[in-house]
Amino acid sequence: MKNTLSNPVKIIPLGGLEQIGMNITAIEYEDSIVVIDCGLSFPEDEMLGIDLVIPDVTYLLENADKIKGLVITHGHEDHIGAIPYVEKELNMPIYATKLTMGIIENKLREHNLMQNVRRKVVTFGQIINLGCFRIEFIRTNHSITDAAALAIYTPAGIIVHTGDFKIDYTPVFGDPIDLSRFAELGKKGVLALMADSTNVTRPGFTPSEKTVGKTFDRLFDDNRDHRIIVATFASNVDRVQQIINSSVKYGRKVVVEGRSMVNIIQTAIELGYINIPDNTLIEIDRIKEYPDNQIVLITTGSQGENMAALSRIASSIHNKVAIIPGDVVIFSSSPIPGNEKAVFKIINELEMKGAHVIFEDTHVSGHACQEELKLMYALTKPKYAIPVHGEYRHLKRHSELAIEMGVPKENVKLLTTGDVLEVSEDVFEVTGRVPAQGILVDGLGVGDVGNIVLRDRQHLSQNGLIIVVVTLEKYSNQILAGPDIVSRGFVYVRESESLLDDCRLVVEEALDVCLRRNISDWGKIKGSIKDSLSEFLWKRTKRSPMILPIISEV
Amino acid sequence: MKNTLSNPVKIIPLGGLEQIGMNITAIEYEDSIVVIDCGLSFPEDEMLGIDLVIPDVTYLLENADKIKGLVITHGHEDHIGAIPYVEKELNMPIYATKLTMGIIENKLREHNLMQNVRRKVVTFGQIINLGCFRIEFIRTNHSITDAAALAIYTPAGIIVHTGDFKIDYTPVFGDPIDLSRFAELGKKGVLALMADSTNVTRPGFTPSEKTVGKTFDRLFDDNRDHRIIVATFASNVDRVQQIINSSVKYGRKVVVEGRSMVNIIQTAIELGYINIPDNTLIEIDRIKEYPDNQIVLITTGSQGENMAALSRIASSIHNKVAIIPGDVVIFSSSPIPGNEKAVFKIINELEMKGAHVIFEDTHVSGHACQEELKLMYALTKPKYAIPVHGEYRHLKRHSELAIEMGVPKENVKLLTTGDVLEVSEDVFEVTGRVPAQGILVDGLGVGDVGNIVLRDRQHLSQNGLIIVVVTLEKYSNQILAGPDIVSRGFVYVRESESLLDDCRLVVEEALDVCLRRNISDWGKIKGSIKDSLSEFLWKRTKRSPMILPIISEV
Repeated sequence: MKNTLSNPVKIIPLGGLEQIGMNITAIEYEDSIVVIDCGLSFPEDEMLGIDLVIPDVTYLLENADKIKGLVITHGHEDHIGAIPYVEKELNMPIYATKLTMGIIENKLREHNLMQNVRRKVVTFGQIINLGCFRIEFIRTNHSITDAAALAIYTPAGIIVHTGDFKIDYTPVFGDPIDLSRFAELGKKGVLALMADSTNVTRPGFTPSEKTVGKTFDRLFDDNRDHRIIVATFASNVDRVQQIINSSVKYGRKVVVEGRSMVNIIQTAIELGYINIPDNTLIEIDRIKEYPDNQIVLITTGSQGENMAALSRIASSIHNKVAIIPGDVVIFSSSPIPGNEKAVFKIINELEMKGAHVIFEDTHVSGHACQEELKLMYALTKPKYAIPVHGEYRHLKRHSELAIEMGVPKENVKLLTTGDVLEVSEDVFEVTGRVPAQGILVDGLGVGDVGNIVLRDRQHLSQNGLIIVVVTLEKYSNQILAGPDIVSRGFVYVRESESLLDDCRLVVEEALDVCLRRNISDWGKIKGSIKDSLSEFLWKRTKRSPMILPIISEV
Repeated sequence: MKNTLSNPVKIIPLGGLEQIGMNITAIEYEDSIVVIDCGLSFPEDEMLGIDLVIPDVTYLLENADKIKGLVITHGHEDHIGAIPYVEKELNMPIYATKLTMGIIENKLREHNLMQNVRRKVVTFGQIINLGCFRIEFIRTNHSITDAAALAIYTPAGIIVHTGDFKIDYTPVFGDPIDLSRFAELGKKGVLALMADSTNVTRPGFTPSEKTVGKTFDRLFDDNRDHRIIVATFASNVDRVQQIINSSVKYGRKVVVEGRSMVNIIQTAIELGYINIPDNTLIEIDRIKEYPDNQIVLITTGSQGENMAALSRIASSIHNKVAIIPGDVVIFSSSPIPGNEKAVFKIINELEMKGAHVIFEDTHVSGHACQEELKLMYALTKPKYAIPVHGEYRHLKRHSELAIEMGVPKENVKLLTTGDVLEVSEDVFEVTGRVPAQGILVDGLGVGDVGNIVLRDRQHLSQNGLIIVVVTLEKYSNQILAGPDIVSRGFVYVRESESLLDDCRLVVEEALDVCLRRNISDWGKIKGSIKDSLSEFLWKRTKRSPMILPIISEV
């Protein structure tokens, strides 16, 4: 009999470690697998032309018969964004809280998957049975409402997965995080805690979301004479609620702009997660009917995203809103690392058009700082700590914090995506690896762009290319046409004619040598063209464009 | 007679506004021009493959006979980096303080320009005569020693240019900024103040460089058992001095690694700007002769630069230094906006290899915060304020600060690169524009990469390219060879053969239509190939690779 209590449960992160985003973890015990979250990540800088990165679910496909369900902690892209892609292959029933499910359903609808995917809305405190697991949804706070931690009751013990969380004693919507429940679980005995590492390098406590509301009130009071534009994250419903509260208080109409924000606000209204008094929201086309200082525009694009509403407004290509000198633009966000320059660029553009930009003290994080994490450890008292959600430097700090909180060093594990960790009272070790590299999505193509293609894009982006076309006579290899030189992304052709003429001479010379030596192998001829041309160009320009010799034969 | 006192002086920034870097300003009065600084800037993200950006000096070339000299404030790349490029065309005599000149001479030597360029070392307090101008060098503090502000005595009045500065009452080397001199100039009457805007958004005072020395002492004390690696800016000689002081105090040998840092330290030693006790510096090859905890490695790469020493150490491709678990790596720097992700990547790599990375409280800025700027205004009491060194958002905040300090609103001007500002007691207005777009340097090419080339690189980087080659028979336009399809950076070819086969069919169809319609114009045939193929690919893949139809004729 294998099914004894002493068998370990397997924890398999298929994404979400090392890099922020793409959160997905499989929990496996014998013939049961539950999957926690199914997120995407945005491409790294070197992934040129890539739209999204989704997790590799090879392991789940190979074990599809074991999967009992997909359990979602909250409705952010890095936790739900890959659902449409993965559900097309796996068709797992989805379990999530109400708002989270509403946002997921928007996605499924876009991908025409509503008919195919089973869904069940779960309430906080509810326990669902999935194979040999029981899973309880516990209320937390985060920068999106309805976020849940999970208590996963496995035959090997209780695993607590916090999801992304913070502790907010005075949340804008709903109740504070259910600390008592974490305390009860701690009393029962928690086998392993998988907790959010995002803010582990920050000391102290993350302030309450409500503090931002107070700032809005002050800013609205200070700027009674100006139009106000607030940029924030599309999914931060509580933030939008607070902007609306201040708008109502100071007698302004509210316009919501940006497709993703309009969608989420619509869902939040329908499901009762946001409270907007009648006659507050107006359509963007009706802006002109009100004085400027009675308008608030809430918009996407706070991260400097190229195509978002704010960016289009800043660069004067938005078709309905133009900056009026005196406009007050509030960034209710802080730049995610990597977005700083894009954000500053937009701030510069807005200020050049006469706007006054405010971006300090107008945002709080949605993630737990050190003292909150310590509280989570103090309450749950886990035997094992498995830091999640973070780059390596976060996981490392988190492991130090766990040890500081009394978890023995050998009971803390820094996992890598794809690790198979076996956990029981007696076992805590990585025993295997499964495929877990991100899969690149470019347009409709999923996985058809790999390292070779990216390397070519990189090469082309740095130095452009030179194409050498030559037509040879069959058998004799005499040149019938060309060599013609075509370049793109290399030099400005009109000003560099003589350089390209010299390239032609170099190629002719190389072809001549091949002919004289009776070299007829196309591979060798191409190699010879490539070598002589790249040597010539390096000497002359210190650049290495991609060189593509193309031979046709007639 | 034109030469009366009431004639205005012209201030012409040829770079350095809007974007950080590439500082260069011309000051012109009748037949005299002096040029202040001659810096480069590093390429923006969208300038794919570009190495550097240097200023457009067309205006200076057109007025070369008027130029009396190039006056340099300090030895940072954004103030001296373009000197070799510009001196090749203009050959201006250079005036700078001793260390600054030493660093400039390293550059001239590299470019074989030492013979051609006249140079004069200037001391603080010294006044030099350049045409109708007299220029005084005034001591300031900055993140490089020997930084100077300039008092430019013009027939229209005194212009004070601060260069990059901070106020450090306890500098590591030399004296504090010469506040009394600024006060005297204020008494005499300053026509215009051109002051550093970099830190104008920060309240308070920038701490003294010496505070970092105290932190080093503490960190060296805390980490007596470990090897210490400190990454900082190559040119921050005072920082290196303090690392050396702590090293000596705690009995460690010092290795300096990274070409740019080795060069500058060498120059600083020769000129007496750094004081290193005998038997402190050792060659990198001798590291093994000492216990790990008696070694300090000072290195470049604190901004995550790809090819710098620290990056090579982190990714295990440095040929002399490998991370040993327990190594303490101190980032004595803060990431310049845009570099955050690169820095975090290196931190992750270092920690994965067992290093402990410290990057908080280990750096102070070299630029004046709000209270320091206010002091500069309070001392110099300028009639006009011309904020320099900053993006638009900085210049804007700076102009608000100037107004707060009593400069009338109409006496503050936010210039754009290329503006010609005329200034006298009675005049303060922009009266013209000169060419002033940055010139892109790619390899040996200066200015041969422009917008079209960059747009092509952008296009290629996002979607790759497809080349269609077809050989036609002269006159008949019958297809003799092809169409052949070659792709790069588009899809992984082996896995997408059927897609490329379909591309061939689409092109054949397009050619067939042209033939049937007797279309023989190559431009039209190419257009038809391009249109049908791009339509097909968008439908099938939602991507838009560059399509290059190439026709040869036999």
